[in-house]
Amino acid sequence: MTDCAFDVAGIGNAIVDVLAHADDARLQALGLAKGVMTLVDAQRAEELYDRMGPAIECSGGSAANTIAGLATLGARTAFIGKVRDDQLGAVFRHDLRAQGVVFDTPAATDGPSTARCMVFVTPDAQRTMQTYLGACVELGPEDIDPDVVANARITYLEGYLWDPPAAKAAFRRAADIAHAAGRQVALSLSDPFCVERHRGEFLELMNDHIDILFANEAEICGLYQCDFDDAVRQLRGHVGVAAVTRGARGSVVMDETQVVVQAAEQIGRLVDTTGAGDLYAAGFLFGHARGLGLASAARLGGICAGEIIGQVGARPAEDLARLVAGKGCVVV
Amino acid sequence: MTDCAFDVAGIGNAIVDVLAHADDARLQALGLAKGVMTLVDAQRAEELYDRMGPAIECSGGSAANTIAGLATLGARTAFIGKVRDDQLGAVFRHDLRAQGVVFDTPAATDGPSTARCMVFVTPDAQRTMQTYLGACVELGPEDIDPDVVANARITYLEGYLWDPPAAKAAFRRAADIAHAAGRQVALSLSDPFCVERHRGEFLELMNDHIDILFANEAEICGLYQCDFDDAVRQLRGHVGVAAVTRGARGSVVMDETQVVVQAAEQIGRLVDTTGAGDLYAAGFLFGHARGLGLASAARLGGICAGEIIGQVGARPAEDLARLVAGKGCVVV
Repeated sequence: MTDCAFDVAGIGNAIVDVLAHADDARLQALGLAKGVMTLVDAQRAEELYDRMGPAIECSGGSAANTIAGLATLGARTAFIGKVRDDQLGAVFRHDLRAQGVVFDTPAATDGPSTARCMVFVTPDAQRTMQTYLGACVELGPEDIDPDVVANARITYLEGYLWDPPAAKAAFRRAADIAHAAGRQVALSLSDPFCVERHRGEFLELMNDHIDILFANEAEICGLYQCDFDDAVRQLRGHVGVAAVTRGARGSVVMDETQVVVQAAEQIGRLVDTTGAGDLYAAGFLFGHARGLGLASAARLGGICAGEIIGQVGARPAEDLARLVAGKGCVVV
Repeated sequence: MTDCAFDVAGIGNAIVDVLAHADDARLQALGLAKGVMTLVDAQRAEELYDRMGPAIECSGGSAANTIAGLATLGARTAFIGKVRDDQLGAVFRHDLRAQGVVFDTPAATDGPSTARCMVFVTPDAQRTMQTYLGACVELGPEDIDPDVVANARITYLEGYLWDPPAAKAAFRRAADIAHAAGRQVALSLSDPFCVERHRGEFLELMNDHIDILFANEAEICGLYQCDFDDAVRQLRGHVGVAAVTRGARGSVVMDETQVVVQAAEQIGRLVDTTGAGDLYAAGFLFGHARGLGLASAARLGGICAGEIIGQVGARPAEDLARLVAGKGCVVV
């Protein structure tokens, strides 16, 4: 692999999170499906926001969280995604650039506002997400900067991109550019409901477009419609490298030659699981892009996930590079 | 005092805080005066934001923070302040209303955007604030709803209102309405630089318009241009009730008949002092509005201040009513 300008380029929905505490009774009163991501239209988003408690705003988006995490680990990163030219779009762009992420996708100048995800955090630290995609539906193949993708060791795509219709074509274009340049393409399955919506396309895509897959237990079982052990077996024959997270039980990572079971990191107080999968991917991708073995990459993933669930929101408040160095992980 | 619809009505700058971590070297590189609030114009705000780290957005504003704190204590509250009809204005309005605060001041439909305060939080938990007043400059006497003010036991005004020129007239109108209805008027001195800018007017205002004054040590010494003991002596002859906060040394509260020295609450980890004074005022005002004695009101203030400095941002994430009940404070 020749030297690259970027370790990882991420392509995903550009979303500002609106985070509030809520108890289970509130979720029920609002008719929300706990623990998953549900898409809502503008009107339902307004209704829910009116009934949401006082909140904080924090840049989010699954692949964007991963890229922000990678940046604080010291990786060279870029992001492609669509905001509008509004205040929340400026917030989203600022927060990535302030981490050193290259993010030059032009903002939409008309149409829906920047995407928002209302995140209801329950006392058990689970997050329930209601996403208004807004300007994300404007992302198309013309937004894929070939210079960025061809110069990234890994192009990382979130499964959520299958929800806004034009983004699929962007995704395929990016994968083609990456492979033509001899790079790798990674995909996160994002969410069990997302898998449900796009199972056939994900399975087909994995046949020839995906080199590295991220999923959690529910997603992988939903993808292959079987139990976990069976799903892992099928997954091994399907993609070159896969990392499957299992919450408090750590992760299982695999390639053609090995399967590694990695225990979860010891964590302090569990505050908010928002971003756990995203930050696991950040740690794993950093290790993988820099040539570490599977087990070391999985451990980096676990450390980053363990850190993010001890705070509110999915963008790391701490310097992850210092954190992993403090745990004896050396990445060059 | 006849029964009132509101315990406290607050009038203040309607501001969304943009909070980021920064070290002292960064403050110096940006040329920022540590620990105080500095006003910046739109261009300087842009420049600083471009050089600020990744941030979170959280509703702020001094009096608005106090009102939000009062609402979570169980007080009946209203707020008067000016946002624009933009995304951050909607965030600000949402966050107050979601606490049960009555906030009906119409948004500006043109002119500058909703106000923003960039808050740089240093490792010592001090906050350094750079405020772009934006739409706050549009607040005028026509925005004072006489029904709200006449029906609030206490009308609470922040000294920062002296910065946008038209707000002064709004402030005076509110004080007149409150007194004509037999209510009380409270003022916070806000910030030592704010005192420096408006010393003469504050002193004159305190002669006949202010019943309850809030200040910290630096503000009160700056107001009377003397040492602390001397300043307290002058203050006692100047307003009916005063509460002076002294950081880790607690507070000194006084009326015509007594001076009470209240020790600070034991706190856990000091995270971010943003909102300490605002939440002290919330606790004190709640006790005072509900007829508690000076010492009890001061203790409530200390508990609320102690809580807010253990989290990022100035809007309480916890239910303050439950917190104070857990500490044995009973308020009806």
